Amino acid sequence: MVYITRREHFSAAHRLFLPGYTDEENFTVFGKCSNPNWHGHNYILFVTVKGEVDPVTGMIIHLRHVSKLIEEKILNKVDHKNLNLEVDFLQGMVPTSENLATSIWKELEEGIRSLGGMLHCVRIEQSENNIIEYYGE
Amino acid sequence: MVYITRREHFSAAHRLFLPGYTDEENFTVFGKCSNPNWHGHNYILFVTVKGEVDPVTGMIIHLRHVSKLIEEKILNKVDHKNLNLEVDFLQGMVPTSENLATSIWKELEEGIRSLGGMLHCVRIEQSENNIIEYYGE
Amino acid sequence: MVYITRREHFSAAHRLFLPGYTDEENFTVFGKCSNPNWHGHNYILFVTVKGEVDPVTGMIIHLRHVSKLIEEKILNKVDHKNLNLEVDFLQGMVPTSENLATSIWKELEEGIRSLGGMLHCVRIEQSENNIIEYYGE
Amino acid sequence: MVYITRREHFSAAHRLFLPGYTDEENFTVFGKCSNPNWHGHNYILFVTVKGEVDPVTGMIIHLRHVSKLIEEKILNKVDHKNLNLEVDFLQGMVPTSENLATSIWKELEEGIRSLGGMLHCVRIEQSENNIIEYYGE
Amino acid sequence: MVYITRREHFSAAHRLFLPGYTDEENFTVFGKCSNPNWHGHNYILFVTVKGEVDPVTGMIIHLRHVSKLIEEKILNKVDHKNLNLEVDFLQGMVPTSENLATSIWKELEEGIRSLGGMLHCVRIEQSENNIIEYYGE
Amino acid sequence: MVYITRREHFSAAHRLFLPGYTDEENFTVFGKCSNPNWHGHNYILFVTVKGEVDPVTGMIIHLRHVSKLIEEKILNKVDHKNLNLEVDFLQGMVPTSENLATSIWKELEEGIRSLGGMLHCVRIEQSENNIIEYYGE
Repeated sequence: MVYITRREHFSAAHRLFLPGYTDEENFTVFGKCSNPNWHGHNYILFVTVKGEVDPVTGMIIHLRHVSKLIEEKILNKVDHKNLNLEVDFLQGMVPTSENLATSIWKELEEGIRSLGGMLHCVRIEQSENNIIEYYGE
Repeated sequence: MVYITRREHFSAAHRLFLPGYTDEENFTVFGKCSNPNWHGHNYILFVTVKGEVDPVTGMIIHLRHVSKLIEEKILNKVDHKNLNLEVDFLQGMVPTSENLATSIWKELEEGIRSLGGMLHCVRIEQSENNIIEYYGE
Repeated sequence: MVYITRREHFSAAHRLFLPGYTDEENFTVFGKCSNPNWHGHNYILFVTVKGEVDPVTGMIIHLRHVSKLIEEKILNKVDHKNLNLEVDFLQGMVPTSENLATSIWKELEEGIRSLGGMLHCVRIEQSENNIIEYYGE
Repeated sequence: MVYITRREHFSAAHRLFLPGYTDEENFTVFGKCSNPNWHGHNYILFVTVKGEVDPVTGMIIHLRHVSKLIEEKILNKVDHKNLNLEVDFLQGMVPTSENLATSIWKELEEGIRSLGGMLHCVRIEQSENNIIEYYGE
Repeated sequence: MVYITRREHFSAAHRLFLPGYTDEENFTVFGKCSNPNWHGHNYILFVTVKGEVDPVTGMIIHLRHVSKLIEEKILNKVDHKNLNLEVDFLQGMVPTSENLATSIWKELEEGIRSLGGMLHCVRIEQSENNIIEYYGE
Repeated sequence: MVYITRREHFSAAHRLFLPGYTDEENFTVFGKCSNPNWHGHNYILFVTVKGEVDPVTGMIIHLRHVSKLIEEKILNKVDHKNLNLEVDFLQGMVPTSENLATSIWKELEEGIRSLGGMLHCVRIEQSENNIIEYYGE
């Protein structure tokens, strides 16, 4: 079993808030991430796939295919977008990096399996100092 | 003459567009950075000051003071904010990184001088791959 | 279960040596890290917490609180300090990064639990090339 | 149980191809990595060892010894070399990063054990965006 | 005058040697970079353009166009290629990073000018530790 | 004229203080860098040399020689040392990064010239956020 990871980037706007809360209450829960006028980040996304190495080709799965899948399923929907308003797979939830990671897992899991691998980890670096990982359970 | 640089971070939303243009025209000029629903970045800001080294203390200017000045004049206004809507020193201009760099220069120049140094460079890394520098002329 | 990591920094002096050994013997065991006149490092500290995502807020634990806990329990005691002479939780042991990692775990574990998460990993990067991780067992 | 990681570098040429295939077939399987005139990479190698911390020295294993072992067993054979033509432990296989990781594991496992640790992970970063890990099973 | 930089990557094989020299003589001049079986690198390329900021758009030159120019003129010719054998603009010279930097300058200068900017610097990072810059004079 | 840069590392202890000042006065001037029990850093040192490219070899100066010179003149004296107590070329001055940069310049200038290049810049990164550069004037 070998683990292979692809790193990708996207930039997006978001706001952390609960609709029924006042701005003050949202600030208490989410801090300056609740700014009503939006703010944004450069997100770094790491997708890790595990699988057996093919004894002929020496590969698990071609990273070009993983990269293309991430582009189609995730980057085309989130890059230079507003995570609260424009992303179908984030509707109805607060766009925290925790929810991003678990939602991206759901979007990618089947596609990775159809490429012949198993999704192992979705990692999001919202900044150099704040990192989220989800392993599917 | 020695050069001393302080690195700082901020996260903000923006949109590149010209008010009189249609969305299509804005897309032609600014690409996906013109998304009407905003997007955002983690900006890295480098401020470089030059000056003579004090022969007693071995310092030009204390970086704590530079850091505090950047916090007061810049970070408090832009971090977790919307660069189009909320930043006084960016009013009336498209919030490109070019305009950010020249505007931050204007905000910092006098304060750096009153600390005993000369502002040499404002550098903004909008992403790992896109970098802007302004040297005041 | 989602994993969330906070990155922090500190700079400190240390010396690796055993009190009953001569300088030559200490050099044999610890190499140039045994220099009697001290040396030091910029340490990067990663603290990883695991927990369930709150379905309402989309968060496990607020990273501001983790950051504040690390500041109070660890950074205030080690940043710009001498790890051999000044740090209560390192008394009586050689201040290797291994001992730092296990000691920081002990200092943080209860506080993380009282914030509603579970401490998962303490990681110390003593340099770009030397990294230590402790998972509590 | 504590985990300690040493980072090392090497630069090498390689070509991904199967001898019985035409250039077109190899391009289909391996993409531009199949260029018949070779290409190359700066590889970053992380070797992680686990072990108990010695209560006297506060160390698992001295990283100098790990570094020296990696130099003798791996770097001397692969740095500034052609992975297809010149590396004994890669003979008869396609020099993908997957095969590199599992082969380096085999080369290092016994040496790490004789130093008193257990090999835990071999990680290869072929570029910033493509990462391979092997945990020995 | 503002400076804008685009970062790009490529991976390539090369060998440093002089045709009339023996392998030993080449090793004396070029060290292990003279390995007759090739080796290779991940090169990071930074292209810096200077220009006046357009008062309407707030941009000097669109980085998409710079990126596209670099792709057409440079990356398509060097990425996953052999710098000694396959790159037209490097024929007849030793493919050192110094020659790469000055040659890339020549390939890009006119195209940058036709985009409305002035080429300011070509920077090549052959590794984290070895960096080359050329400013056109 | 091409510029070539070598990156090196060292770790050292230091204390910023003036002998005639009380601990309180030193704290006012130097902040927590004045801790009487020392602290330390991982310093990253960049040495930039400029010169004409040799039309035969395609090199200005071999980086191996620059690296060896830096090791002999600088790293052997400062790595894992106490900058206040043990470094001959820092005697009688406060070991700030400003003084380090100008002192390293003096130590290297003649050696670089005898290798056939001209010293252009000494850059010290005391941390990710604090950077000092000296250009010799």
